[in-house]
Amino acid sequence: MANNYRKMNAADGARVELHDALGLTGAEVSVNVLPAGTGVPFVHSHKQNEEIYGILAGRGYAVLDGERVELNAGDWLRVSPATKRQFFAAETESVKYVCIQVKENSLGGYTADDAVL
Amino acid sequence: MANNYRKMNAADGARVELHDALGLTGAEVSVNVLPAGTGVPFVHSHKQNEEIYGILAGRGYAVLDGERVELNAGDWLRVSPATKRQFFAAETESVKYVCIQVKENSLGGYTADDAVL
Repeated sequence: MANNYRKMNAADGARVELHDALGLTGAEVSVNVLPAGTGVPFVHSHKQNEEIYGILAGRGYAVLDGERVELNAGDWLRVSPATKRQFFAAETESVKYVCIQVKENSLGGYTADDAVL
Repeated sequence: MANNYRKMNAADGARVELHDALGLTGAEVSVNVLPAGTGVPFVHSHKQNEEIYGILAGRGYAVLDGERVELNAGDWLRVSPATKRQFFAAETESVKYVCIQVKENSLGGYTADDAVL
Protein backbone atom coordinates (compact mmCIF):
# COMPACT_ATOMS: atom_id res chain seq x y z
CA MET A 1 0.00 0.00 0.00
CA ALA A 2 0.93 3.61 -0.41
CA ASN A 3 0.98 5.96 2.55
CA ASN A 4 -2.77 6.40 2.72
CA TYR A 5 -3.16 4.13 5.74
CA ARG A 6 -1.32 1.77 8.06
CA LYS A 7 -2.84 -0.86 10.37
CA MET A 8 -1.60 -2.97 13.29
CA ASN A 9 -3.08 -5.10 16.06
CA ALA A 10 -2.31 -4.15 19.66
CA ALA A 11 -2.54 -7.56 21.25
CA ASP A 12 -2.82 -7.48 25.01
CA GLY A 13 0.54 -6.87 26.62
CA ALA A 14 2.15 -4.61 29.13
CA ARG A 15 2.30 -1.65 26.74
CA VAL A 16 2.01 -1.10 22.98
CA GLU A 17 3.20 2.20 21.47
CA LEU A 18 1.69 3.18 18.12
CA HIS A 19 3.68 6.25 17.01
CA ASP A 20 6.49 4.49 15.20
CA ALA A 21 4.49 1.40 14.26
CA LEU A 22 1.82 3.43 12.45
CA GLY A 23 3.89 6.46 11.40
CA LEU A 24 1.81 8.88 13.47
CA THR A 25 2.65 12.59 13.10
CA GLY A 26 0.10 14.28 15.37
CA ALA A 27 0.00 12.05 18.43
CA GLU A 28 1.60 9.25 20.36
CA VAL A 29 -0.95 6.64 21.39
CA SER A 30 -0.18 3.80 23.79
CA VAL A 31 -2.33 0.90 24.94
CA ASN A 32 -1.45 -0.09 28.49
CA VAL A 33 -2.40 -2.87 30.90
CA LEU A 34 -1.66 -2.74 34.62
CA PRO A 35 -2.19 -6.04 36.48
CA ALA A 36 -4.29 -5.99 39.66
CA GLY A 37 -2.46 -4.39 42.57
CA THR A 38 0.20 -2.69 40.46
CA GLY A 39 0.84 0.83 39.22
CA VAL A 40 3.11 2.87 37.02
CA PRO A 41 6.23 3.16 39.23
CA PHE A 42 6.74 6.92 38.84
CA VAL A 43 4.90 10.24 38.90
CA HIS A 44 5.26 12.36 35.76
CA SER A 45 4.07 15.54 34.12
CA HIS A 46 4.67 17.01 30.67
CA LYS A 47 6.32 20.07 29.18
CA GLN A 48 4.03 20.70 26.20
CA ASN A 49 1.74 17.72 25.81
CA GLU A 50 -1.87 17.27 26.83
CA GLU A 51 -2.76 13.65 27.63
CA ILE A 52 -6.14 12.01 27.08
CA TYR A 53 -6.77 8.73 28.89
CA GLY A 54 -9.57 6.29 28.07
CA ILE A 55 -10.33 3.32 30.32
CA LEU A 56 -10.96 0.38 27.99
CA ALA A 57 -11.54 -2.36 30.58
CA GLY A 58 -11.22 -3.09 34.25
CA ARG A 59 -10.86 -0.67 37.11
CA GLY A 60 -8.22 1.46 38.74
CA TYR A 61 -7.43 4.95 39.90
CA ALA A 62 -5.18 7.88 39.11
CA VAL A 63 -3.48 10.28 41.47
CA LEU A 64 -3.61 13.73 39.86
CA ASP A 65 -1.80 16.49 41.75
CA GLY A 66 -2.29 14.41 44.88
CA GLU A 67 -6.03 13.81 44.36
CA ARG A 68 -7.27 10.23 43.97
CA VAL A 69 -9.61 9.84 40.96
CA GLU A 70 -11.47 6.55 40.47
CA LEU A 71 -11.32 5.03 36.98
CA ASN A 72 -13.88 2.67 35.49
CA ALA A 73 -14.38 1.27 31.99
CA GLY A 74 -15.81 3.96 29.71
CA ASP A 75 -14.20 6.85 31.60
CA TRP A 76 -12.22 9.41 29.60
CA LEU A 77 -9.99 12.12 31.06
CA ARG A 78 -8.08 15.12 29.83
CA VAL A 79 -4.96 15.78 31.91
CA SER A 80 -3.22 19.14 31.42
CA PRO A 81 0.54 19.12 30.74
CA ALA A 82 1.68 20.34 34.16
CA THR A 83 -0.51 17.98 36.20
CA LYS A 84 1.52 15.45 38.19
CA ARG A 85 0.00 12.03 37.40
CA GLN A 86 0.35 8.39 38.37
CA PHE A 87 -1.90 5.48 37.36
CA PHE A 88 -2.80 2.32 39.28
CA ALA A 89 -4.92 -0.79 38.82
CA ALA A 90 -7.43 -1.69 41.52
CA GLU A 91 -6.21 -4.08 44.19
CA THR A 92 -8.28 -6.95 42.81
CA GLU A 93 -8.72 -6.06 39.15
CA SER A 94 -6.47 -5.09 36.25
CA VAL A 95 -7.03 -1.95 34.20
CA LYS A 96 -6.54 -1.50 30.45
CA TYR A 97 -6.31 2.03 29.12
CA VAL A 98 -5.32 4.05 26.12
CA CYS A 99 -3.14 7.14 26.56
CA ILE A 100 -3.20 9.74 23.79
CA GLN A 101 -0.42 12.34 23.88
CA VAL A 102 -0.89 15.49 21.77
CA LYS A 103 0.65 18.94 21.76
CA GLU A 104 -1.49 21.36 23.76
CA ASN A 105 -3.35 23.89 21.56
CA SER A 106 -2.23 22.16 18.35
CA LEU A 107 -5.67 21.36 16.95
CA GLY A 108 -7.08 23.79 14.38
CA GLY A 109 -10.36 23.04 12.65
CA TYR A 110 -11.87 19.61 13.20
CA THR A 111 -14.81 17.43 12.19
CA ALA A 112 -17.10 19.56 9.97
CA ASP A 113 -14.49 22.35 9.71
CA ASP A 114 -11.78 19.99 8.50
CA ALA A 115 -13.82 17.41 6.59
CA VAL A 116 -14.20 17.11 2.83
CA LEU A 117 -17.37 15.27 1.82
CA MET B 1 -11.48 21.24 40.57
CA ALA B 2 -9.09 23.55 38.81
CA ASN B 3 -8.11 23.01 35.22
CA ASN B 4 -5.63 20.25 35.91
CA TYR B 5 -7.98 17.49 34.73
CA ARG B 6 -11.51 16.80 33.57
CA LYS B 7 -13.28 13.41 33.46
CA MET B 8 -16.43 12.02 31.85
CA ASN B 9 -17.98 8.64 31.13
CA ALA B 10 -18.70 7.75 27.51
CA ALA B 11 -21.64 5.43 28.06
CA ASP B 12 -22.48 3.31 25.07
CA GLY B 13 -24.40 5.28 22.49
CA ALA B 14 -24.34 6.10 18.83
CA ARG B 15 -21.49 8.61 19.19
CA VAL B 16 -19.86 10.53 22.02
CA GLU B 17 -17.60 13.49 21.21
CA LEU B 18 -15.03 14.45 23.85
CA HIS B 19 -13.52 17.74 22.60
CA ASP B 20 -16.00 20.13 24.17
CA ALA B 21 -16.91 17.88 27.10
CA LEU B 22 -13.30 17.57 28.25
CA GLY B 23 -11.90 20.88 26.98
CA LEU B 24 -9.44 19.18 24.64
CA THR B 25 -7.00 21.45 22.79
CA GLY B 26 -4.86 19.01 20.80
CA ALA B 27 -7.36 16.47 19.51
CA GLU B 28 -10.97 15.61 18.94
CA VAL B 29 -11.77 12.12 20.16
CA SER B 30 -15.06 10.35 19.48
CA VAL B 31 -16.35 6.98 20.63
CA ASN B 32 -18.61 5.43 18.02
CA VAL B 33 -20.86 2.38 17.79
CA LEU B 34 -22.24 1.08 14.49
CA PRO B 35 -24.97 -1.57 14.84
CA ALA B 36 -24.62 -4.80 12.83
CA GLY B 37 -25.29 -4.29 9.15
CA THR B 38 -24.95 -0.49 9.22
CA GLY B 39 -22.28 2.00 8.22
CA VAL B 40 -21.43 5.67 8.30
CA PRO B 41 -23.64 7.01 5.50
CA PHE B 42 -20.96 9.08 3.73
CA VAL B 43 -17.39 8.95 2.49
CA HIS B 44 -15.09 11.67 3.82
CA SER B 45 -11.51 12.85 3.85
CA HIS B 46 -9.75 15.68 5.71
CA LYS B 47 -7.96 18.90 4.89
CA GLN B 48 -5.30 18.93 7.62
CA ASN B 49 -6.13 16.22 10.13
CA GLU B 50 -4.68 12.76 10.55
CA GLU B 51 -7.13 10.26 12.01
CA ILE B 52 -6.25 7.33 14.26
CA TYR B 53 -8.90 4.62 14.66
CA GLY B 54 -8.90 1.95 17.36
CA ILE B 55 -11.36 -0.94 17.30
CA LEU B 56 -12.57 -1.39 20.88
CA ALA B 57 -15.06 -4.22 20.36
CA GLY B 58 -16.85 -6.16 17.66
CA ARG B 59 -16.01 -6.42 14.01
CA GLY B 60 -16.38 -4.40 10.85
CA TYR B 61 -14.51 -3.03 7.89
CA ALA B 62 -13.37 0.23 6.40
CA VAL B 63 -13.20 1.24 2.76
CA LEU B 64 -10.04 3.34 2.33
CA ASP B 65 -9.53 4.83 -1.14
CA GLY B 66 -11.69 2.01 -2.46
CA GLU B 67 -9.84 -0.80 -0.68
CA ARG B 68 -11.74 -2.94 1.83
CA VAL B 69 -9.81 -3.32 5.13
CA GLU B 70 -11.10 -5.79 7.74
CA LEU B 71 -11.36 -4.47 11.31
CA ASN B 72 -11.24 -6.58 14.47
CA ALA B 73 -11.03 -5.70 18.16
CA GLY B 74 -7.51 -4.55 19.00
CA ASP B 75 -6.77 -3.17 15.53
CA TRP B 76 -5.41 0.37 15.28
CA LEU B 77 -5.06 2.38 12.05
CA ARG B 78 -3.53 5.65 10.97
CA VAL B 79 -5.44 7.22 8.07
CA SER B 80 -3.76 10.11 6.25
CA PRO B 81 -5.78 13.32 5.76
CA ALA B 82 -6.48 12.90 2.02
CA THR B 83 -7.57 9.25 2.22
CA LYS B 84 -11.25 8.77 1.32
CA ARG B 85 -12.73 6.69 4.15
CA GLN B 86 -15.99 5.03 5.14
CA PHE B 87 -16.62 2.69 8.11
CA PHE B 88 -19.04 -0.23 8.43
CA ALA B 89 -20.05 -2.82 11.02
CA ALA B 90 -20.03 -6.48 10.01
CA GLU B 91 -23.34 -7.86 8.73
CA THR B 92 -23.92 -9.85 11.91
CA GLU B 93 -21.93 -7.93 14.54
CA SER B 94 -21.69 -4.34 15.75
CA VAL B 95 -18.40 -2.50 15.95
CA LYS B 96 -17.29 -0.02 18.60
CA TYR B 97 -14.35 2.22 17.79
CA VAL B 98 -12.54 5.33 18.91
CA CYS B 99 -11.58 7.98 16.34
CA ILE B 100 -8.76 10.39 17.26
CA GLN B 101 -8.44 13.47 15.08
CA VAL B 102 -5.16 15.42 15.28
CA LYS B 103 -3.43 17.97 13.06
CA GLU B 104 -0.90 16.24 10.81
CA ASN B 105 2.73 16.94 11.81
CA SER B 106 1.67 18.77 14.97
CA LEU B 107 3.47 16.58 17.51
CA GLY B 108 6.87 17.77 18.73
CA GLY B 109 8.68 15.86 21.44
CA TYR B 110 6.79 13.08 23.17
CA THR B 111 7.14 10.52 25.96
CA ALA B 112 10.72 10.75 27.29
CA ASP B 113 11.38 13.97 25.33
CA ASP B 114 8.35 15.73 26.77
CA ALA B 115 8.11 14.15 30.21
CA VAL B 116 9.17 15.67 33.50
CA LEU B 117 9.91 13.07 36.16
